[in-house]
Amino acid sequence: MSGDDAPAQQQNAEETKQENKPSEEPKAESKPESPPVSSTEAAATPATEKVPEEEQFTYRSLVLSGYGGYDKVKLQVKKGKPALKAGEVMVRVKACGLNFADLLARQGLYDRLPSPPVTPGMECSGEIEAVGEEVTDRKVGDKVLVLNRCGLWQEVAVVPATHTFLIPEGMTFEEAAALPVNYITAYMMLFDFGNLRPNQSILIHSAAGGVGIAATQLCQTVKDVTVFGTASASKHETISQGGVTHCIDYRTRDYVEEVRKISPKGLDIVLDPLGGSDTHKAYNLLKPMGKLITYGAANMLAGQKKNLLAVAKTWYHQFSIHTLSLIQNNKSVCGFHLGYLDGEVEVILQAMTTILDLYRQGKIKPRIDSTYHLEQVGDAMRRMQERNNIGKVILITEPMPEEEKKEEKKEDKKKEDKKKDDKKKDDSKKEDKKEEKKEEPKNEEKNEVKKEEKKEEPKKEEK
Amino acid sequence: MSGDDAPAQQQNAEETKQENKPSEEPKAESKPESPPVSSTEAAATPATEKVPEEEQFTYRSLVLSGYGGYDKVKLQVKKGKPALKAGEVMVRVKACGLNFADLLARQGLYDRLPSPPVTPGMECSGEIEAVGEEVTDRKVGDKVLVLNRCGLWQEVAVVPATHTFLIPEGMTFEEAAALPVNYITAYMMLFDFGNLRPNQSILIHSAAGGVGIAATQLCQTVKDVTVFGTASASKHETISQGGVTHCIDYRTRDYVEEVRKISPKGLDIVLDPLGGSDTHKAYNLLKPMGKLITYGAANMLAGQKKNLLAVAKTWYHQFSIHTLSLIQNNKSVCGFHLGYLDGEVEVILQAMTTILDLYRQGKIKPRIDSTYHLEQVGDAMRRMQERNNIGKVILITEPMPEEEKKEEKKEDKKKEDKKKDDKKKDDSKKEDKKEEKKEEPKNEEKNEVKKEEKKEEPKKEEK
Repeated sequence: MSGDDAPAQQQNAEETKQENKPSEEPKAESKPESPPVSSTEAAATPATEKVPEEEQFTYRSLVLSGYGGYDKVKLQVKKGKPALKAGEVMVRVKACGLNFADLLARQGLYDRLPSPPVTPGMECSGEIEAVGEEVTDRKVGDKVLVLNRCGLWQEVAVVPATHTFLIPEGMTFEEAAALPVNYITAYMMLFDFGNLRPNQSILIHSAAGGVGIAATQLCQTVKDVTVFGTASASKHETISQGGVTHCIDYRTRDYVEEVRKISPKGLDIVLDPLGGSDTHKAYNLLKPMGKLITYGAANMLAGQKKNLLAVAKTWYHQFSIHTLSLIQNNKSVCGFHLGYLDGEVEVILQAMTTILDLYRQGKIKPRIDSTYHLEQVGDAMRRMQERNNIGKVILITEPMPEEEKKEEKKEDKKKEDKKKDDKKKDDSKKEDKKEEKKEEPKNEEKNEVKKEEKKEEPKKEEK
Repeated sequence: MSGDDAPAQQQNAEETKQENKPSEEPKAESKPESPPVSSTEAAATPATEKVPEEEQFTYRSLVLSGYGGYDKVKLQVKKGKPALKAGEVMVRVKACGLNFADLLARQGLYDRLPSPPVTPGMECSGEIEAVGEEVTDRKVGDKVLVLNRCGLWQEVAVVPATHTFLIPEGMTFEEAAALPVNYITAYMMLFDFGNLRPNQSILIHSAAGGVGIAATQLCQTVKDVTVFGTASASKHETISQGGVTHCIDYRTRDYVEEVRKISPKGLDIVLDPLGGSDTHKAYNLLKPMGKLITYGAANMLAGQKKNLLAVAKTWYHQFSIHTLSLIQNNKSVCGFHLGYLDGEVEVILQAMTTILDLYRQGKIKPRIDSTYHLEQVGDAMRRMQERNNIGKVILITEPMPEEEKKEEKKEDKKKEDKKKDDKKKDDSKKEDKKEEKKEEPKNEEKNEVKKEEKKEEPKKEEK
């Protein structure tokens, strides 16, 4: 696991600077929605001896303290047992999923996350620890996965019972945390907007990402679907085994040309998480009756912090379509984002039920790329943002063993000077792209995949 | 049947003016695609005695002579037997369907019709009279319905065999001619783009029109679909019997309000044949995961001739959407027009096969509003353009009985002076809307439905 930037253990110093509250000391949070009940299992530091039980209750929580780089997500300890409202349950969280929206949110580019300080996290899994009034279909001890607007990257989460789904027999907590966002997104896009049917063809960008893997698996449930998938070359073997028919290395090839070579008439569906000029390409790749389903603007993300140039460029090139063109081309353009589907409990329940059935039938299985402790959230985010993952990046709430912590600290110390340099660079507001190039040497101790991709990165960013 | 404007019998004078070729005299057409084989059945005038058999072959054909009003579609007699290319068949046409695109085409607003002079007509039914080489699945005598880009409003049509579909047992030629355009359009919109499923809700504009009736019937094949349908009040009983759950008189009510009263959360699908500001309303009426399917710009049609103001207004208000808005709303915007789906033989075959199966099962049945002779094409177009039809307007190739012709001529004579007045008005290029108001008194001898609607018309046009 890479860790040259902002692992949570290093936060104390920074936090002191910003808030004068070291992260390892319990903080009494007064937010009405977030806090929880009673357990000592995971509290990092003991509360004072004679306070009431409710106040002894502490739990670790990741908090976005302000918009910016990886170090803006800090591990804090919250104190106090939350009162459950009617219809709510309290979940002892075991694992959390990372999503692209979390990366955008950290940079202030995702309007569904309330303003900082706030706990991010749209999905997790765990056990129900308490149920509020009027909750009839959940009980203490139930293993559930949770989908929520935010607030799930912490050891204890309080959510409406309707946002929880029972975990099927045999599913690990990591798998469960990897399921909701990616699979519901892929499912709704393919089978609601996309209306995917046998013999059709589809382009899946970032086929090695969470949604990409989920979409590829779901495509296998329909007969004879041809899947074009983009990913860097090092990931091709894995995604090919996962069901991608034609793997395209978008870093060295023009994916439009590659698709046209094989499917001159174009495609039935394009899933577009990129935005900007890639949406135009997607539209042009559609055959008549084709569906473009756009579900993100990953092109806006170019570097650790908000890159105004990338945002402006993506926005400037953002696709806008006139209905008369749609008519003359017999095409469909759809937008999807689960984060904006809050109120649609029925829709989500239906999709989730089908997805869990498919899991039980062995037709889908989340692919876990890597697992990080809460303390390592910076590394986890970096892995995703730098597109080094194949499948899902997971956070686990289990505290980091002391040996590991020591080891990381040693490494951190070694890198501290470099880190300070980085900070200076950050402050001087150079373009993130350039920064990353300079940081490259530091990544040498990382795994091979990462190295390979870093070298190609400038290509990607030019796209 | 109304007939104060340009019935085909009156054309001689005008045609002489324009082309010096009276319509009732056979014309040798040199167009390679249109002409046909041998029969005397329907030829209006005999060819000279001793010409070769090929040249004796004549057939009546409607020809758009230039863009403009109803009188621009003229009945001519074509001469000469067409050579069939490989893969083609010659059809002795019995009945033809009228579509909204034909009305737009006459005004020069539909780019899929080649420049005049040209024979319009996208659908017809009839019997195969000759088959070209390489045609293996059609034989002389087969009863077929035909879907083609144009050229079907004539007694004899030559088309690729793949554009013909065998008519099921018991289906009349009128029904067969009413089927392809409206039902394929409705089918593709509902079940491909729309992905209609049980318990969903839909708004069908012009629910008494050809596509409206077809869509309503197809909605009945899915469990518990709530259909909102707009139509003038006089048509409500009929469309309600046809399956519309909530009828809305768009001339006296705000349809958005009416829908919101019953479905506050909005709709799953809106079919939009109107364009302009109605497309915006449609988009706003969608609930999350909703689909707007736009398939026309009927709002551009305001009067007999091209109304630049209406065109400009419709174009100005034409809906344009940014993908980021689609993402934040979880919505889909689709455009459909069968006329642009030319090359998609497989797609159309599949839809047509399903539609014919549904007919055999008694689940759908085209509703014929009225039947006109080729000579009455002006009246037929007017009926549709003035939205007096409930269901399909059909042209039949059977020559008009002599008595009927005489009767019409008498009436025409009575109206001739008025007609000349109209022509002057036309020439002075006043707004069509005003013209129609002035013409209103002439419609008094028409059927009740028509009268009722005419009174309300100004309202519609203000929309």
